[in-house]
Amino acid sequence: MPAEESEMAEPQAAAPAPMDDLAIRAAHLLQRLRVERRRVHAITNGAAQVFTANLLLAAGATPSLTTSPDEVPAFAARADALLINLGTLDAERRAAIPWAIAVARAAHRPWVLDPVFVDLSPPRLDIARLSLTGCPSVVRCNATEFEALAGASASLESARAFARDHGLTVALTGARDLITDGDHAATVENGHPLMAQITAMGCATTALVAAFASMIDAFTAATAGLLLCGIAGEIASETARGPGTFQAAFLDALFSLDEAAVAGRARIT
Amino acid sequence: MPAEESEMAEPQAAAPAPMDDLAIRAAHLLQRLRVERRRVHAITNGAAQVFTANLLLAAGATPSLTTSPDEVPAFAARADALLINLGTLDAERRAAIPWAIAVARAAHRPWVLDPVFVDLSPPRLDIARLSLTGCPSVVRCNATEFEALAGASASLESARAFARDHGLTVALTGARDLITDGDHAATVENGHPLMAQITAMGCATTALVAAFASMIDAFTAATAGLLLCGIAGEIASETARGPGTFQAAFLDALFSLDEAAVAGRARIT
Amino acid sequence: MPAEESEMAEPQAAAPAPMDDLAIRAAHLLQRLRVERRRVHAITNGAAQVFTANLLLAAGATPSLTTSPDEVPAFAARADALLINLGTLDAERRAAIPWAIAVARAAHRPWVLDPVFVDLSPPRLDIARLSLTGCPSVVRCNATEFEALAGASASLESARAFARDHGLTVALTGARDLITDGDHAATVENGHPLMAQITAMGCATTALVAAFASMIDAFTAATAGLLLCGIAGEIASETARGPGTFQAAFLDALFSLDEAAVAGRARIT
Repeated sequence: MPAEESEMAEPQAAAPAPMDDLAIRAAHLLQRLRVERRRVHAITNGAAQVFTANLLLAAGATPSLTTSPDEVPAFAARADALLINLGTLDAERRAAIPWAIAVARAAHRPWVLDPVFVDLSPPRLDIARLSLTGCPSVVRCNATEFEALAGASASLESARAFARDHGLTVALTGARDLITDGDHAATVENGHPLMAQITAMGCATTALVAAFASMIDAFTAATAGLLLCGIAGEIASETARGPGTFQAAFLDALFSLDEAAVAGRARIT
Repeated sequence: MPAEESEMAEPQAAAPAPMDDLAIRAAHLLQRLRVERRRVHAITNGAAQVFTANLLLAAGATPSLTTSPDEVPAFAARADALLINLGTLDAERRAAIPWAIAVARAAHRPWVLDPVFVDLSPPRLDIARLSLTGCPSVVRCNATEFEALAGASASLESARAFARDHGLTVALTGARDLITDGDHAATVENGHPLMAQITAMGCATTALVAAFASMIDAFTAATAGLLLCGIAGEIASETARGPGTFQAAFLDALFSLDEAAVAGRARIT
Repeated sequence: MPAEESEMAEPQAAAPAPMDDLAIRAAHLLQRLRVERRRVHAITNGAAQVFTANLLLAAGATPSLTTSPDEVPAFAARADALLINLGTLDAERRAAIPWAIAVARAAHRPWVLDPVFVDLSPPRLDIARLSLTGCPSVVRCNATEFEALAGASASLESARAFARDHGLTVALTGARDLITDGDHAATVENGHPLMAQITAMGCATTALVAAFASMIDAFTAATAGLLLCGIAGEIASETARGPGTFQAAFLDALFSLDEAAVAGRARIT
């Protein structure tokens, strides 16, 4: 991908110092995660469980995935961060989610909401809105999900307003990722189209955001999570022969990601 | 696989024109699917969800996988086709399946039944038989499943009779796949033994049949789905070093499959 | 891994004859499994289902995975062995487990318990203890899980005592695996750190132990299952570029494992 590589140098050189700093801090967060092996409890959809666990392991975190309501409190209490993904929202998950959130809040642990497909399911949208009252640190979603959840177009201004209103960080993902906590805003342009050809890529990325949210402020955590996964996707695309080999190469790239690669590839403004 | 390659040229040269035409139409269907990105809602077993979603994405379709009864109608209503797979048939799926079928019928969308392991579970066989009253477009199963469902041996004649009686297409898969809508019949000999060494390969293939059934008649859809997956399996086997690398190579091959490869490899009569 | 390779030759040469014999017997068991294609019914967690099924297929066994209580008896009755893994213990699995165990016992089939994360969940620990009354042939767990279950430190002596008290084989896995039926004890030192970077590796390995338990005594079955997976992990590590490619390479290695590789690599005492 010579075209992408030549594009890379410029925005990075032109980027303001705090954003260069964000890339370096992201690399250091990953380094720390590998040492501290933070625990993330993920209540996530059936199609995302395996890839979420493997992405967390590749990044150095320790996943747990239980969804049954009478076990979730014990797991959430031991975790450093919680991920709530609203996919395949069966009766078990629906009963477990409020308890998991309550435990995370009682223990002053951050939690991250992934309101997957709320645009397609009215009952799920209701649950997503109720979940917001539980004060997530980060909401990660795509443009159509944001529009359903916020009742506003997916612009920087409405993302800022939503973030301020709810006291959280919005991570709006797409070809270009937009992250804002209301005051700060960042754009991440790393990534590769093959990432959209793998089920649960966004869901699993959000789990890394949750891991980082246990280590640093939500805005930096969300930016670092999206940046590192985007860079791992670019590296993977260079050897992949399609979506099958891409998925394995992505986990390999994340597992081996170092500061030099992050600093050299980050396209963040 | 030089032996297989040399076998390929002959039946293809000898194949009747309409069957050559089926291979070309299959390649064109795949081309169209990549552009139209048809939505398939799959109520499928826990072991098949990820591979089904990744196969649909690799083929250009858009998967959704929700199984909860109060969400399924919204997802099924937005989908172009529905897949009902009877594996890991828990209480959620059992409650969701009739609603999903009702929504698909009300919207005049095709749906495809995969009665996995009905030969091993009497309650599942009952549900499969009840599901037939919901008029699936295609039933895809192996010989022992067909025998349990149809109460007849897995021959072309009983498949024809079953197809006529129920007004559907039977896709009977095995080393050689047999497809019939009662009037027409086709045999697909593409495929590779490693396909049987990957869990959910048949389940995921059926999801591609469902995607095609939203674009063309059920007989052509079933033949095209099995043919293209069989060819992708053959291509994958040429680089795979075992079932692990085969699975990734299969998705890569399906993602990159073009008309020349389909026309050159199809063994369909 | 030249260091590991040079370590390999010595313990093997120094190993007592019965232990060399165990490696050879393990290779022969695998050979037999590929011919006899034993059926294993696995009630296992959502994150482990796919990898468990693919590992069993790669080893030559035939998996089934249904968890619904009214279907499990039919599946368990047809299986040669049963695996009960206590992860993602939802209401379906909780209701299904006692029936599955009852069917296995009535049919005189062995069953294997994997009490995953019982150290983290008091209700799960209760279920694990109740399950022990159903006389599993093997309990496979790590040190912290053993300590929670046995109420004793994870030493050879307490493993022996627990094995004798419950009339079963304990397989205590970690960097070094310890297997004992109370009378005999073996240590397996094969394996690779990347095995801990893949979710469900331990769960899936236990399914192979279950397959072997249908063919031979529980102590030999457990030792053989852990040995062969450890060796497959070592072979996979030689070509893997990280945890993503490792997982595929592991399945490939298990699929192709032969007696020469097992005899040459076994580090068992």
